[in-house]
Amino acid sequence: MTNLQRPMKRTLVEQIVAQLEELIENGTWPVGDRIPAEPELVKELGVSRNTIREAIHALIHAGMLRTRQGDGTYVCSSSSLAPALTRRLERCELSDTLDVRSALEQEGARLAALRHTPEDLERIRSAYQQVRYAWEERDFEHLIRLDYAFHSAIIAAAHNAILSDLYDSISEAVQMAVHDGSTSLELLQIHAELNEQLVKGIVARNAAGAADTVRAYIDASRTMLLQDIEGGNEIHHE
Amino acid sequence: MTNLQRPMKRTLVEQIVAQLEELIENGTWPVGDRIPAEPELVKELGVSRNTIREAIHALIHAGMLRTRQGDGTYVCSSSSLAPALTRRLERCELSDTLDVRSALEQEGARLAALRHTPEDLERIRSAYQQVRYAWEERDFEHLIRLDYAFHSAIIAAAHNAILSDLYDSISEAVQMAVHDGSTSLELLQIHAELNEQLVKGIVARNAAGAADTVRAYIDASRTMLLQDIEGGNEIHHE
Repeated sequence: MTNLQRPMKRTLVEQIVAQLEELIENGTWPVGDRIPAEPELVKELGVSRNTIREAIHALIHAGMLRTRQGDGTYVCSSSSLAPALTRRLERCELSDTLDVRSALEQEGARLAALRHTPEDLERIRSAYQQVRYAWEERDFEHLIRLDYAFHSAIIAAAHNAILSDLYDSISEAVQMAVHDGSTSLELLQIHAELNEQLVKGIVARNAAGAADTVRAYIDASRTMLLQDIEGGNEIHHE
Repeated sequence: MTNLQRPMKRTLVEQIVAQLEELIENGTWPVGDRIPAEPELVKELGVSRNTIREAIHALIHAGMLRTRQGDGTYVCSSSSLAPALTRRLERCELSDTLDVRSALEQEGARLAALRHTPEDLERIRSAYQQVRYAWEERDFEHLIRLDYAFHSAIIAAAHNAILSDLYDSISEAVQMAVHDGSTSLELLQIHAELNEQLVKGIVARNAAGAADTVRAYIDASRTMLLQDIEGGNEIHHE
């Protein structure tokens, strides 16, 4: 009997998973919010407690939900792509991650140069000013986060949501690696100069120039981060 | 009482999920194989049938396992990244997908030009000959698949497993879109010419030239595929 019932039950769980996923993706359940408790979901969706529980497990595994002991279940990602990419990046060399970052960021900068609106430019300039200020103040605590926000504003000006999603996941992985290691003053100096050049390239709608600038600072990061690894600092994640 | 037990149970399911995932990722359970039946897993892992079932549901949802009615559960992907990206691409415009393909393929070609080994070149040339032959024979049935295999051989020469994984997922999505639409002879002609130029660029270790060639044929695809959409052909997936 169990054998006969199982296929139907599987389908039901998958249906519930799809429904919950839809609520998360379309923002009905936004990131950071606690989802309704099990009894409420049982009542609302008209399925058994077991079915709800299995569906929630699937979404926890996909990295979209997270359980806090004694406090319920929270939304932690709006799609399963970023968590899957993050897990994949955890199992690879920093050098491979930098290749992918370079691919996405070069194209992001190129498209931002071609597609940016006046509003995009305003956001990019404002993010750039904050990085500059942190750099001038030698506020290293905030510099990496602000630098990421600046580059993220550039990718956003490419007006492509998947490119932004992929870039965000990659950036998180790279930021973790950079935080673990000792980012040198020399590298920060190079980034500060190239950031300015990047903004100029985008404003001038110079797509090739913007992409070249991105490649220049990722190559600089690569050289120095890998030197650190060879020097014995454990900054790659494997 | 239920409340007190749940956190422990969740942890156990997640442990089993991680164990099964590891077996799939390291190839102990290769793609295409049927995994052991539930009773066997219960015995081997020493956990309840329910726990096994929840863990398997999670992996089905992640796109790593698939159930065939009355025939058991099969491995269908070696990581959760490709299925997550594929699901994400299903919900976006073809134009956005082409941006991401362009990003990955430009960098793949650039790195292939810099990093290729003699064996890589042999594989690229052999894949290229097959595309040329299919093109000369007007064997359109196989041309798209062979063209993909050719570009995949180039990305492989970049020696970066994530870049290849991401590219494969994107290619599948683009191929589906191209199959649905009517690829014009004119576009195939452009690709045939640029493929030759791409091989020459990689052989000559001309990274910038290889990347430029990739951009040229993706831009050509973009123009023609989007014309088709405007002309009323339903070739984007939304």
